[in-house]
Amino acid sequence: MSAGIRVGIVGHGNLGRGVRLALQHCPDMCLEAIFSRRDPARLGVAPGGPAVYPLARVQEFRDALDVLILCGGSRKDLPEQGPALARDFCTVDSFDTHARIPEYFSQVDTAARAGGRLALISTGWDPGLFSVNRLLGEAILPEGSTYTFWGKGLSQGHSDAVRRVPGVHDAVQYTIPRSAAIERVRAGETPALSTRERHTRECFVVLEQGADAETVRDAIVSMPDYFADYDTSVHFIDAETLARDHSAMPHGGFVIRSGQTDAGHAQVMEFSLRLQSNPEFTSSVLVAYARAVVRLYQKGETGAITPFDVAPGLLSPRSPEALRKDLL
Amino acid sequence: MSAGIRVGIVGHGNLGRGVRLALQHCPDMCLEAIFSRRDPARLGVAPGGPAVYPLARVQEFRDALDVLILCGGSRKDLPEQGPALARDFCTVDSFDTHARIPEYFSQVDTAARAGGRLALISTGWDPGLFSVNRLLGEAILPEGSTYTFWGKGLSQGHSDAVRRVPGVHDAVQYTIPRSAAIERVRAGETPALSTRERHTRECFVVLEQGADAETVRDAIVSMPDYFADYDTSVHFIDAETLARDHSAMPHGGFVIRSGQTDAGHAQVMEFSLRLQSNPEFTSSVLVAYARAVVRLYQKGETGAITPFDVAPGLLSPRSPEALRKDLL
Repeated sequence: MSAGIRVGIVGHGNLGRGVRLALQHCPDMCLEAIFSRRDPARLGVAPGGPAVYPLARVQEFRDALDVLILCGGSRKDLPEQGPALARDFCTVDSFDTHARIPEYFSQVDTAARAGGRLALISTGWDPGLFSVNRLLGEAILPEGSTYTFWGKGLSQGHSDAVRRVPGVHDAVQYTIPRSAAIERVRAGETPALSTRERHTRECFVVLEQGADAETVRDAIVSMPDYFADYDTSVHFIDAETLARDHSAMPHGGFVIRSGQTDAGHAQVMEFSLRLQSNPEFTSSVLVAYARAVVRLYQKGETGAITPFDVAPGLLSPRSPEALRKDLL
Repeated sequence: MSAGIRVGIVGHGNLGRGVRLALQHCPDMCLEAIFSRRDPARLGVAPGGPAVYPLARVQEFRDALDVLILCGGSRKDLPEQGPALARDFCTVDSFDTHARIPEYFSQVDTAARAGGRLALISTGWDPGLFSVNRLLGEAILPEGSTYTFWGKGLSQGHSDAVRRVPGVHDAVQYTIPRSAAIERVRAGETPALSTRERHTRECFVVLEQGADAETVRDAIVSMPDYFADYDTSVHFIDAETLARDHSAMPHGGFVIRSGQTDAGHAQVMEFSLRLQSNPEFTSSVLVAYARAVVRLYQKGETGAITPFDVAPGLLSPRSPEALRKDLL
């Protein structure tokens, strides 16, 4: 093996830092450069660490990188960066705005085809590994129902929504799956479950000085889309407690296919994750898929693809022979 | 869609019957013929059901079938049938003698390449879905340990071993994973677990008339390879109880990857199955992979492959667009 797969990271938030850490466990890959819109001098990368460049200079690296891992957010960064970069680089991203995936896929596909590159969108764990398990469940057990439960975990979007409530100084929100619902599905039932029956929500809130707790609580639990359809509990704590007990980013969840084959035989497939660091796990998935993208590109594939298009063996650094011998 | 994928089944035991049932849930596939070494008149296929032919006539169907699903056993049937049929047909099988997979792969690969066909070996759930999850765990979390637990389920090989003990008229054996071990792994530990710490074994035995129970029990629990390394319990029951309570074929198990990303963050991936009918589930997996084999063959692939070489999307009858929109 030569120097290995040459990787660039775009964006150096939680996800970009996670990719940098994950690459340290991949001897077949090497981090060549980090690109950021922020002042590279202020990114806090240790001396002797990888070089950091302004994103505006990324085009200079067109022939020096095998794959770019896009670590920006799905709301603002990726809709712009994904199509723009897929023309000149092979890319991998974790675009997770489910409703806009077909549109995003199409834009990235057009760009990647125009430039003769390969771009894998929407990997991580959901979308990503959870999506793959939803597909497997449905393909293997056509008669049945699929259930996705999230948590227990910190939801960034819901935490942000709570922080926007007047009177809230800071807050975190946890999504919690209901064990009773999971147990019914695991037992081979295929229940119709309402939103309220699947998950509960729990908020830890630091109030602004002088804010009224009950007013804030009412504003949170009645918030449409985010909380009104759930049983939500709100706990008021001080800033020190929030920093001490709620700064980790755990998450996880369950994809369960409850199906039947003949004669009423219940068959249950379940995939679950228990993650102490959501961004570090997502980053680890991105890195494995980056390896697959480079291999598929070397075989001549171009355009946009998703985790549905990647054979598992391409994710591993090991040879097909070794995988068959040791893991099959 | 035309008549769809034309399927032949070789072998009509539990697995072959399961494939026949699974195909009824696949409108894109159609069962054209069943091949058997037994007298077709004695197979018990209902009038109006699929045609049954002697296996010796399979070559006549060379151009009439898109894929053959091989439902024979791994000890005697597949080592002979796999290479023989892969020369003239695309095939799928569930070869599960782990230690002989490299040798079997090589033989099937040679035959399939010689005939310009594609053959997928060793799918089902283990080998198969469990293998894929072992690979995913290792590729995504390089720092960590993988654990496979089987059961609770009826083990055919161990049941056969008990039946060979002198004094045993009939018997079944259940493999049972130890909850304490599973819970340690789920909690993010990476314990070294002995064989005895992972599983227990439970036997239900019908004695031959006049046989001595304690002699039989000692012969079972001290049997090398099969029972000596486990805590094994033996229950003596009558033939009616065996037929009434132990004729189902449940199985299942767990593949757990307990890994770490940076700063000691524990990350746990788990895939599990709870199956009321082991052969019917394995058959359902075979059918989904048969669909993938036909698609890959149509793209020009030949030789032998395994589940590691199959992108998830190829297993589903739905279009890539629909899968991205609904499941990603």
